[in-house]
Amino acid sequence: MSYILTRSSQISTPLKLASVLCGTRAQFNFLPTRLLSSYASRNITPKQVPYTSDSHPQFKRNKQFKKITPADIKHFKNILSTTGVIEADGVHITEEDLLPYNQDWFQSYRGNSKVVLKPRTVQEVAQLLKYCNQEKLAVVPQGGNTSVCGASVPVFDEIIINTSNMNKIRAFDPISGVVTCDAGCVLENLDNYLAERDYIVPLDLGAKGSCQIGGNISTNAGGIRLLRYGSLHGNVLGLEVVLSDGTILDNLSTLRKANTGYDLKQLFIGSEGTLGMVTGVSLLTPRRSKSVNAVLFGLNSFDHVQETFMNAKEKLNEILSAFEFWDESSLHYGQTLTAKNYRVPFDKKYPFYVLVETRGSHEDHDREKLDTFMEDLFNQGQIEDGVIAQDASQFNNLWSIRDSLGESWGGGMPIYKYDLGMPVPMLYKLVEMLRERLTQHGVLGPQGPAKDVTGFGHIGDGNLHLAVFAERYDQKLAALIEPYVFEFVEKHQGSVTAEHGLGIKNSSFIGYSKSPAMVDTMKRLKKVMDPNGIMNPYKVI
Amino acid sequence: MSYILTRSSQISTPLKLASVLCGTRAQFNFLPTRLLSSYASRNITPKQVPYTSDSHPQFKRNKQFKKITPADIKHFKNILSTTGVIEADGVHITEEDLLPYNQDWFQSYRGNSKVVLKPRTVQEVAQLLKYCNQEKLAVVPQGGNTSVCGASVPVFDEIIINTSNMNKIRAFDPISGVVTCDAGCVLENLDNYLAERDYIVPLDLGAKGSCQIGGNISTNAGGIRLLRYGSLHGNVLGLEVVLSDGTILDNLSTLRKANTGYDLKQLFIGSEGTLGMVTGVSLLTPRRSKSVNAVLFGLNSFDHVQETFMNAKEKLNEILSAFEFWDESSLHYGQTLTAKNYRVPFDKKYPFYVLVETRGSHEDHDREKLDTFMEDLFNQGQIEDGVIAQDASQFNNLWSIRDSLGESWGGGMPIYKYDLGMPVPMLYKLVEMLRERLTQHGVLGPQGPAKDVTGFGHIGDGNLHLAVFAERYDQKLAALIEPYVFEFVEKHQGSVTAEHGLGIKNSSFIGYSKSPAMVDTMKRLKKVMDPNGIMNPYKVI
Repeated sequence: MSYILTRSSQISTPLKLASVLCGTRAQFNFLPTRLLSSYASRNITPKQVPYTSDSHPQFKRNKQFKKITPADIKHFKNILSTTGVIEADGVHITEEDLLPYNQDWFQSYRGNSKVVLKPRTVQEVAQLLKYCNQEKLAVVPQGGNTSVCGASVPVFDEIIINTSNMNKIRAFDPISGVVTCDAGCVLENLDNYLAERDYIVPLDLGAKGSCQIGGNISTNAGGIRLLRYGSLHGNVLGLEVVLSDGTILDNLSTLRKANTGYDLKQLFIGSEGTLGMVTGVSLLTPRRSKSVNAVLFGLNSFDHVQETFMNAKEKLNEILSAFEFWDESSLHYGQTLTAKNYRVPFDKKYPFYVLVETRGSHEDHDREKLDTFMEDLFNQGQIEDGVIAQDASQFNNLWSIRDSLGESWGGGMPIYKYDLGMPVPMLYKLVEMLRERLTQHGVLGPQGPAKDVTGFGHIGDGNLHLAVFAERYDQKLAALIEPYVFEFVEKHQGSVTAEHGLGIKNSSFIGYSKSPAMVDTMKRLKKVMDPNGIMNPYKVI
Repeated sequence: MSYILTRSSQISTPLKLASVLCGTRAQFNFLPTRLLSSYASRNITPKQVPYTSDSHPQFKRNKQFKKITPADIKHFKNILSTTGVIEADGVHITEEDLLPYNQDWFQSYRGNSKVVLKPRTVQEVAQLLKYCNQEKLAVVPQGGNTSVCGASVPVFDEIIINTSNMNKIRAFDPISGVVTCDAGCVLENLDNYLAERDYIVPLDLGAKGSCQIGGNISTNAGGIRLLRYGSLHGNVLGLEVVLSDGTILDNLSTLRKANTGYDLKQLFIGSEGTLGMVTGVSLLTPRRSKSVNAVLFGLNSFDHVQETFMNAKEKLNEILSAFEFWDESSLHYGQTLTAKNYRVPFDKKYPFYVLVETRGSHEDHDREKLDTFMEDLFNQGQIEDGVIAQDASQFNNLWSIRDSLGESWGGGMPIYKYDLGMPVPMLYKLVEMLRERLTQHGVLGPQGPAKDVTGFGHIGDGNLHLAVFAERYDQKLAALIEPYVFEFVEKHQGSVTAEHGLGIKNSSFIGYSKSPAMVDTMKRLKKVMDPNGIMNPYKVI
């Protein structure tokens, strides 16, 4: 690393960043195609995960829902042909074969569905849903199954309708940058397609190699580019959605402005498949940036993290594309619990780290802005150390550090994990207060059961990923964490789930973030859109 | 103008643009406070506008709605005190006094409401709506009354609930840039407030001096900054809304990420007050740009306009903030029908004009990008002439030209006017084809009745403002324009109203842009949100 800044050094002349950097950020591809191998690499036997119906007895199967019969399977095969129906018959296909569809990435939930349907067209989806609605068969719409709150797996025996076979890009307009595609397009494939045309998906997240755009939209995925490109509510221009009764809502507009009545598509963004199933997508995509840079800082306090963010908004302004922070403890678990191969380019440890990414159209301009920004930070004492990536390898190295933090949540240790939205000034206060609370109660430290309280996240979006790493799940510890965390969030007008969604995991906590009137209105909408309640039941509300 | 480019001249060194430019763009303030004086300046007697119930006999008053009684007025005065109730009693307050509330800017519609209510708090709005719902009194939520499709005026005797007295800024967070305010804040006032804090409203439109943020949100206003900052669906973080039964939905989140259940606020963005009344707003605002530039080009063809747009997206990329185009005919009416004082800085006329605005954080960088961009355009023959504003006065001059086009629609000549969304390549084709069609039928030319077909709009948003200027309204001419225009739009998957909305004017045309299944779903939503249909009836659907 030749561009390390220290208090005694001068900032050197900006160095060129290879243009090949665009889009070369290394992704960790998990799930679901690699689910089993991923289990293997972590020495975890998938069978260890109990059925959700056993581990979460508070969920009761809705008796209104019919249990699937051979006649239903026959009907599905008529619609999809044999290859589109994967049935666990115990002979050709076992329960274990369906594990990648029944079980979630965090291994918290395991449904007991016996059939996975893989339609290829919106008409097939419509026929399937119409039939399921008539027969009162509950369904789970599923994309890449990378949900981390159990939104994309069945709770009981719901039929899984998986969009993996709907993976065509339908159209792209190089003037407007609007792409139209099937819901089952894998995010990374879509981004690669756009990269060839000098455009970029305005969304990036760790599961990029497996998650599908339909699932991203249904969960209103946030990720690291939200700071720059905004939310999917702004970037999705049109959706094709099938309602529970088989009605196709063809709202695949490619227009940025189209005020003709209620913007129905918005309802399906983030409703986790409970109001309808997304089958097609029109997305506004920005031009790909020619110049991409990443810098890593070591900082002494969260106040300095906030000041650095303010400074970045002013000095980097239109080229700022990500602003991520993490604490020393998060880094520790990223380093010890994942197989990521990276080097932290500082000689000493810091309480906080910040990763800033810029994307612009002019390399020299961007580097000049970055230099001014860093010089200011350094002179004002907001950062202790800093490094700028000078080639693709260093760029990927810096992002690997950030990626390892999320990956460390994927198993290896019992973790109480939270994805919270809060005003930035309160963001880290919660980590500190929870740490103090658990210490005072004697449950945090080398003696356990809690080993550490950690925090990382997206400063620019007010999004904190909070975790309590523990040596075992413990009732007393759990009772000290919850509802404390949710009450703190409620007190500060935060969100109990910022970007992960409600799913199975968080649905009972909605009251901490939404008023009874809001929840009641949601229920009335659900009733009108899905009167039989067959769409992804037991989730959201 | 010293920076005029001609084919024979060389591009000179970039010149400094005064930083005072930020936010100094001259606005034309119309409506409703200046409605009457505006009528006067145009020599129009407001009384000339007939009641909508007479001019549009297709609208029938819903007999379910009660007519207002003295007891109702008394009840309103109990809630609001006397000053909050403006009643046309024929003694102290005449019908003419209520004209700014009953009549729209384009003078196409005139409601016959006898009472205007001006609440100050969300609780007062809730009490009013609860009562009106119980009594089946229809209401029109109204902000600055600058709608150009009749969305903000009554059709019959609906009670007007005007938000002008709800005009407080409630909070601003300088770290996140989130502002929370009352619905009745005038857009320009809000922008001035933010300007003092180095932030900017991510929305700009001609009616800025009169329109209110609640109305902007209720109509999903687009305007000229949408290209840069995206739509309100992305920038609105939270809303406070009162439902027809008086329920307050407190969804004033200030978070960028908050996936806790259905994103209800989205339903109220663009639904023109038919689902509920917006009373409070949380808005994500970007940092104000230090460097603002405007350039005007003369071009020979619409193909060149498109190529210039592609070039701007590539070369200006992250600093591109507006890309507006107009044809020679639009300019002619802008020059002759408005009182705008500006100079077109070219020696000759061109078939097309393009106004490009950039906003960035570094003046030298921005000017260098602009120079490269213009040099390219010039060398490739995409532009014939070009000029860059060198001070605030020249900047305002260029924008005055663009503003005059919208203003020319405000009266003076009979105009058939349309606000259409379409894929960019088809945008101007419609103007050409309509011109040809009307010529072939002998209704366009010096002999009239049509004098000219004109087109201008926002290229970056695929938004065309199409107008047929005429010497008189003519049945044969009208029949040649409609449904031809709507059929063209439908054929090219366009929108019959891009940013103006449906209101009274366009509600019957929704079928050209939305399928029966979509319209049916909207109606079901309307029913569940407003069972008695009291919210802004006869509009949208």
